Amino acid sequence: MTYCVAMRTNSGLIFMSDTRTSAGVDSFAVTRKMFSWAVPNERKITIMTAGNLATTQSMISLLEERSKAVEERDPSILHQKTMFQVARLVGATLREVIADSAPSGQTSNDQFRASVIVGGQIKGSPPTVFMVYPEGNFIEITDDTPFFQIGETKYGKPILVRMYDPEMNFEEVVKLLLISFDSTVKSNLSVGPPFDLEIYRNDSFLSEPPKRITDADPIYKTISSNWGEALKEAFQSLPHYNL
Amino acid sequence: MTYCVAMRTNSGLIFMSDTRTSAGVDSFAVTRKMFSWAVPNERKITIMTAGNLATTQSMISLLEERSKAVEERDPSILHQKTMFQVARLVGATLREVIADSAPSGQTSNDQFRASVIVGGQIKGSPPTVFMVYPEGNFIEITDDTPFFQIGETKYGKPILVRMYDPEMNFEEVVKLLLISFDSTVKSNLSVGPPFDLEIYRNDSFLSEPPKRITDADPIYKTISSNWGEALKEAFQSLPHYNL
Repeated sequence: MTYCVAMRTNSGLIFMSDTRTSAGVDSFAVTRKMFSWAVPNERKITIMTAGNLATTQSMISLLEERSKAVEERDPSILHQKTMFQVARLVGATLREVIADSAPSGQTSNDQFRASVIVGGQIKGSPPTVFMVYPEGNFIEITDDTPFFQIGETKYGKPILVRMYDPEMNFEEVVKLLLISFDSTVKSNLSVGPPFDLEIYRNDSFLSEPPKRITDADPIYKTISSNWGEALKEAFQSLPHYNL
Repeated sequence: MTYCVAMRTNSGLIFMSDTRTSAGVDSFAVTRKMFSWAVPNERKITIMTAGNLATTQSMISLLEERSKAVEERDPSILHQKTMFQVARLVGATLREVIADSAPSGQTSNDQFRASVIVGGQIKGSPPTVFMVYPEGNFIEITDDTPFFQIGETKYGKPILVRMYDPEMNFEEVVKLLLISFDSTVKSNLSVGPPFDLEIYRNDSFLSEPPKRITDADPIYKTISSNWGEALKEAFQSLPHYNL
């Protein structure tokens, strides 16, 4: 399993992904699920993946044009004119990989499926995020749906629904995401730290490498251990149910 | 979908179930998913069901021996000597109903499946709870696993994991369950109020009818609306993540 969240606030975009990949509880490893491309002062694109690892790695390799000789590579993801076109390229690539993996003559098989979040900004348009389905179609983030999740989405959703505020600054959003990830980690063994984090400030077109937050990170440890206590105080502040 | 929770504390057992049944978003209704049997001063048994409604209603009818003439009925659930034997009876009945529903010659079909929580106390043994699977086998509640959930379990689980304390009184447990149910209702349209609530105090062997908590209940409305605010304060009390 996997847990990835992309969120849009008034300040920009925030991406966070876990790094655990598993083929059963006795076979797990750390793998990156967040990938980005940048052209300084012109575009910044981030992709997060969930689902079959062979499918998602193959999709990323094709987007990076690793099927061509090194000197011939010129990834078309760097030349799409809009984020909408980027989402179409990602969707077409994803669908193609799944179709290639499925046994010939059959419809695409569940076991090769994957989901993708792609977001960023290309000069001339505002930042945006798309969620791309295995069929290659996609939906776009809106003010009413200001975040997308893929993978093990349910445990960490209620806190996002209750706490999201478009006015939050990046520090607050990262704290919120760490709580959501910690709730998921505590409930599903197949989601685990370290977490990859990428922050994109509106109109910055900057290429900053993702930050990796390990389970030894002092702030993450504090948030993880103190959230239970903070919840208990919140709980006490509500009226009891009189039986 | 459905959401039911059974929890054991030092004071007794608490059962809560939602009441929404649906066959698509354009076909939904209120239906009871909590059933109980009592022999004053001797036993109290409560069952909650999730899954195919035809399966669970048929199982309850068989447990009530509605396949016999009214004057011949003497439900064997009232004569089992231990809760373990009650769980075996429920498991066997559930498996039988699913087998009867599945097309002949095929293995039991997913669409007829259901899960059941059965708990209570029979004089001479402590109160306990079992979770019964569609195959008829079951697991028992322990101090390490002090609650069972069936149906849409994920949204409401993190708050239970963080807040459960065996020393809680019934008023606190009901508040905790209402927060868990409210988180689920806010995330899944197929779970909805009113909620049925049954509380069993250790060694009481009392037959109290379940209480029904509607969405107009003033305490539920207060908890539902104020939990977001209480969470915000808890959130502010944690350190920000310094980027």
